[in-house]
Amino acid sequence: MTKNYSIAKSRRLRSTPYTSRIEKQGVSSYTIYNHMLLPASFGSLEESYSHLKEHVQVWDVAAERQVEISGKDSSKLVQLMTCRDLSKSKIGRCYYCPIIDDNAGLVNDPVVLKLDENRWWISIADSDVILFAKGLAIGNKYDVKIFEPNVDIMAVQGPKSFKLMEKIFGKKILDMKFFGFDYFDFEGSKHLIARSGWSKQGGFEIYVENTESGLKLYDEMFKVGKEFNVKPGCPNLIERIESALLSYGNDMDNNDNPLECGFEKYVNLESNINFLGKDRLIKIQKNGISRKLMGLKIESNQINMTKSLEVKNEKGEIIGELRSACYSPHFKKVIGIAMINKPYWNASQAISVQINEKTIKGMVCDLPFI
Amino acid sequence: MTKNYSIAKSRRLRSTPYTSRIEKQGVSSYTIYNHMLLPASFGSLEESYSHLKEHVQVWDVAAERQVEISGKDSSKLVQLMTCRDLSKSKIGRCYYCPIIDDNAGLVNDPVVLKLDENRWWISIADSDVILFAKGLAIGNKYDVKIFEPNVDIMAVQGPKSFKLMEKIFGKKILDMKFFGFDYFDFEGSKHLIARSGWSKQGGFEIYVENTESGLKLYDEMFKVGKEFNVKPGCPNLIERIESALLSYGNDMDNNDNPLECGFEKYVNLESNINFLGKDRLIKIQKNGISRKLMGLKIESNQINMTKSLEVKNEKGEIIGELRSACYSPHFKKVIGIAMINKPYWNASQAISVQINEKTIKGMVCDLPFI
Repeated sequence: MTKNYSIAKSRRLRSTPYTSRIEKQGVSSYTIYNHMLLPASFGSLEESYSHLKEHVQVWDVAAERQVEISGKDSSKLVQLMTCRDLSKSKIGRCYYCPIIDDNAGLVNDPVVLKLDENRWWISIADSDVILFAKGLAIGNKYDVKIFEPNVDIMAVQGPKSFKLMEKIFGKKILDMKFFGFDYFDFEGSKHLIARSGWSKQGGFEIYVENTESGLKLYDEMFKVGKEFNVKPGCPNLIERIESALLSYGNDMDNNDNPLECGFEKYVNLESNINFLGKDRLIKIQKNGISRKLMGLKIESNQINMTKSLEVKNEKGEIIGELRSACYSPHFKKVIGIAMINKPYWNASQAISVQINEKTIKGMVCDLPFI
Repeated sequence: MTKNYSIAKSRRLRSTPYTSRIEKQGVSSYTIYNHMLLPASFGSLEESYSHLKEHVQVWDVAAERQVEISGKDSSKLVQLMTCRDLSKSKIGRCYYCPIIDDNAGLVNDPVVLKLDENRWWISIADSDVILFAKGLAIGNKYDVKIFEPNVDIMAVQGPKSFKLMEKIFGKKILDMKFFGFDYFDFEGSKHLIARSGWSKQGGFEIYVENTESGLKLYDEMFKVGKEFNVKPGCPNLIERIESALLSYGNDMDNNDNPLECGFEKYVNLESNINFLGKDRLIKIQKNGISRKLMGLKIESNQINMTKSLEVKNEKGEIIGELRSACYSPHFKKVIGIAMINKPYWNASQAISVQINEKTIKGMVCDLPFI
């Protein structure tokens, strides 16, 4: 079994406004995300998973930091960083946007919020997008302002999140469409709330700017939420893998391009927009990719991934790399996300991986898992 | 007392080539640094501290990642990022260089190695300097190549490091001056070795590119080092605070400028070199800074910092922020590093901080501590 190591806290691993609360509520482990504490478990992962799929949870995901870009050239800069065509983007909408560099390597996979024609929030995964944006803006002499605002997201996730949010914010909140956002009042303070979140169980993300009001709201969630069996939670490894929600740094990184990661939908090469890595991506698309993110199903009832594992074919040749995995209560076996080399990426390809020094068999499958 | 939380490992929190070794050797906690595991303790911090000051330790500091910048415009780009004048820099030397943005906010405080006239390594503290460099290079259309090479630093620190290194690499290694580097042979592999390290106890950093040879060297250190009482270790909180070695993200961050952090020596405003934030720094210097990093001595025998603490004067007014602190066996009290507002930054200014809900008295002092 894998030993537990404690995390050495310090100012550099920033706390969030909710940290003291979740520590009273029984957070048991952390990961670090954008130089900040991100809760990783409240006791058993499996129990949290079951609860999340049935009830409602409140998550401290303040580590999803915002990069605010405003000013005359802000739209140009945001577009320069992503291969997704934002020319028809609308205020009040969220956009999942792979950010890539001039070599088409992924830099981040944020959700971009269009706050105004010339004001954007990039809600980032774990890398310093702010430094990339600043470098590009300075080099290009763009007229923009770039900073990290004090925004600490609280997510409300799970099927009963709708009832809980309705109770606090009223019926109007149910009108919001997926990946829409709007401003809602809580005791006299306006909060930006999006219908989004890092689970497939439904829910909302509250972009808390007014910390005092946000903390009151946090407490209110647990008062009002009792009848919905609300619990504290966090992005759940099992749920996110079953739902095939990719994690930057885990499933893909700067050595991967968006076409290898199944982001075709967000790679708009035919448009006449200007973005970094476009020429490179056109070339890659023409020649075809040489590897691809795929699912794996593995005949085991446990795995504890701390780094990549080699994936082999029947002949024992390395054909890829398993990057995330967990035991899935739904599939009753281990499932994982792996970068698989051509031509082995077809569903049903037999594979094996080493788990605790045993060779375990499995097969490649499509994402999302079915 | 502060509760321990475990770290949820995953591929995103990258392991190092040495991780499996240090886990056998008893590492007890980690921090995360540049998206990588950095050991933070092997049992008692105080015992490690005493050992480091007397004997020799081998450290897994692979988390000190390198950003390699090469090509025709590489010197221009490196100089653009730092306020330190590198125009007279020499191949084979290390340079401590604050990296700042156009607003003069600190981005990182790396050691820069000049490998060749047009090839540099930036040995970074905890922020994605590679994204800043790429953004600037792309925006300025510089002819450079920027990437993170496979370099995993192993540090050898402590007064007996010289004897241990001599035994392995021969007398020649003792000729190297502080912040010099050169290439040394170990069983047929060349390793770049610098006389540097994140302690004031003397020692070396081995920039391991050949992992296989590096792992053999790691094991050799512990074989050969027995007679010098070698132990595994890591940057030690107590030793580094006593030595006033600043930590980016802890003691200073992007909201601070180099003049506030005591980096005057590395701020070359009079030179005719071109770097980001120069105009801003000239203005700041003219108007004078409004706060300054200072030492604190606090009449307590314990502290466990997980985030900043308010520093107050005799009247109970907030006059600054304590950012790092520890109990110092040398001074027999708590010492710390704090950002103190003007005009309260003079040595002997009486202060108080809250530790475990008690108000504890202390005073401001100069850095380094004496």
